[in-house]
Amino acid sequence: MSQPHKLCMIPGPIEFHEDVLDAMSTPATSHVDPLFVPIFGECIELLRKVLLTKDAQPFIVAGSGTLGWDMMVNLVERDDEVLVLNTGYFGDKFAECLEVYGAKVTHLRAPIGDRPSLDELKKALSAKKYKMVTVTHVDTSTGVLSDVKGVAETVKSISPETLVVVDGVCSVGSEEIRFDEWKLDAVITASQKALGVPPGLCIVAVSQQALQVFKTRKTPVAGYYSNWNKWLPIMTAYEARKPAYFATPAVQLIYALLASLKQLTAQSMDTRFDQHRQVSQKFKKAVTDLGLKQLAVSDEVAANGMTAIWLPEGVQVSDIVPSLAAKGVQIAGGLHAECATKYFRIGHMGISVTEPQRGHIDKVIESLTTTLKEVKSKA
Amino acid sequence: MSQPHKLCMIPGPIEFHEDVLDAMSTPATSHVDPLFVPIFGECIELLRKVLLTKDAQPFIVAGSGTLGWDMMVNLVERDDEVLVLNTGYFGDKFAECLEVYGAKVTHLRAPIGDRPSLDELKKALSAKKYKMVTVTHVDTSTGVLSDVKGVAETVKSISPETLVVVDGVCSVGSEEIRFDEWKLDAVITASQKALGVPPGLCIVAVSQQALQVFKTRKTPVAGYYSNWNKWLPIMTAYEARKPAYFATPAVQLIYALLASLKQLTAQSMDTRFDQHRQVSQKFKKAVTDLGLKQLAVSDEVAANGMTAIWLPEGVQVSDIVPSLAAKGVQIAGGLHAECATKYFRIGHMGISVTEPQRGHIDKVIESLTTTLKEVKSKA
Repeated sequence: MSQPHKLCMIPGPIEFHEDVLDAMSTPATSHVDPLFVPIFGECIELLRKVLLTKDAQPFIVAGSGTLGWDMMVNLVERDDEVLVLNTGYFGDKFAECLEVYGAKVTHLRAPIGDRPSLDELKKALSAKKYKMVTVTHVDTSTGVLSDVKGVAETVKSISPETLVVVDGVCSVGSEEIRFDEWKLDAVITASQKALGVPPGLCIVAVSQQALQVFKTRKTPVAGYYSNWNKWLPIMTAYEARKPAYFATPAVQLIYALLASLKQLTAQSMDTRFDQHRQVSQKFKKAVTDLGLKQLAVSDEVAANGMTAIWLPEGVQVSDIVPSLAAKGVQIAGGLHAECATKYFRIGHMGISVTEPQRGHIDKVIESLTTTLKEVKSKA
Repeated sequence: MSQPHKLCMIPGPIEFHEDVLDAMSTPATSHVDPLFVPIFGECIELLRKVLLTKDAQPFIVAGSGTLGWDMMVNLVERDDEVLVLNTGYFGDKFAECLEVYGAKVTHLRAPIGDRPSLDELKKALSAKKYKMVTVTHVDTSTGVLSDVKGVAETVKSISPETLVVVDGVCSVGSEEIRFDEWKLDAVITASQKALGVPPGLCIVAVSQQALQVFKTRKTPVAGYYSNWNKWLPIMTAYEARKPAYFATPAVQLIYALLASLKQLTAQSMDTRFDQHRQVSQKFKKAVTDLGLKQLAVSDEVAANGMTAIWLPEGVQVSDIVPSLAAKGVQIAGGLHAECATKYFRIGHMGISVTEPQRGHIDKVIESLTTTLKEVKSKA
């Protein structure tokens, strides 16, 4: 099944493979059916391969990526100090969520388009003891890439007990992540970005160190649907190919997740990271050649799965987005509160990257080029 | 597309219509695409039709039905008194959720297979002032039907300020619910039961009275992903056919929801309620004719969308469920902690009821009859 439709080239949801969409329409299947149980179990196993981890604990729960922030309620207790490395909208919102659950948040902010330096991080870590440091791997609002490896290294060298939590919603599957090697404690993601599955699954992976912090917490977890005491036995059971029940899993989405994870892990993650880097460079070169500038202040801080681009002087979002839509390409406007009307965003993840024969990237570049010419000729 | 598969005749997920499954594989679409926005908006409007309400506020959020309990965090403040009309497993768990958010829960329990009487409810209401009374419309663990109309009438006549919250996960779309006429304050449900959509959507509708309680609460809402301050502007925007963002909605599931709600509301809800009553009576008669007894102690307290059936003396769940599965029919074992191994459950909702030409109900009865004969001949 390959239906004609506008290419979805926003920074998630991304374009989905036909096999993934077919799995979405799997006929009704009980969530405890012996047919379904191993599907769920295999998803849990394959997520470890994607994250390059041997013993992190994955959670797959019906919900949006935002629910992943909520799950940090399992690690946070009232008045815990949390340092948020803030590179945009999603840093603000993650912090807002942690504050609801009692965390005392300190922001380490960078100017729009940049990320806090490791030196600033070092300084912050020597000034105060933090229970947790959070980092948005790719802030979808700015397209800024954080140096997760460097952040984790810095945190663990200064304060090994401090948990390193990565918001990987816009990075898992497109940016290099080495969960074990980098000593990460939690990675939060969702189905609809580089994992290539329709939206509706919240996915979190947690280190054994973080699980220990969870298990030895002093106060009860302040949430119900997000509570790992509920989910841990479910994940353990399904991985052992046994059914279990806390809440009905999103069966069809999990069939789709398996279809996508099988494709994803059929090649090495290194190959996948490289593919995303190369396509990103190609795309960003085209953007530069068009005379456009990115929000990201340097190549080093630019995401490989998306690009956030300043509008040329005098050009509106409404000159660009609908024009590309008319050419069959959906892109996204801005999201950062301070400059939402001044830029636009394009995603390049998943099959649009790994299957160049689909021509998605070329079509976006071509459409953007034509649109800019049209806008100029009108001006 | 009509793939051969075991009929899913558990009390949810139920069998899905081909149009609903086709909608599940809608190609990638942005959650703020002008194509998608009215899809979401129409779902909100049609949910009001299903619940027979003019001005209740629906919420459609990615998650399991269990998340609907979590959403009651918007109405509950620490030390609020809540009365739980408990007819099984789901009463216990709903209470557990409310307690996490600080509610002081009193259970009004009935013996397995029965429901608390309205007289008992009156007595409880005169003994203490409650902020909220919860009732599980159909407890999926026992197949017991609550008298929601009677409960709401009783509560509102004694204590009009008390909120009546209905866990309608296993009842919306199969049991009579008249949100406005019965003066309900919240109905919680999920996509995968009588609404006929794959699991992954939590659906809640809230009265204006309850929204007022929410808006005038004294303490902040103790949850983030469940917080109506976040979701209310989103629902209002989509209904006004404007995009908005808090968390990425489960786009494909919402396409599927619209497909199902359109079918569902193409006839009157009264017709649908009647269809479910009639098929339930037919099914329950067949069960009785086979010499089997239900958990429900009388016709009055028996659900119309499912039946929970005691195993005959000496027969195990493992004699019944796999045997029906081998005949192409998936049914469910028991769930109530006190007697899980002693009964089994069968669902009869949605297209299995409204489209008798599919022959689902006949196939279940036929398979159950054969299985019981086989079990007897072995004994």
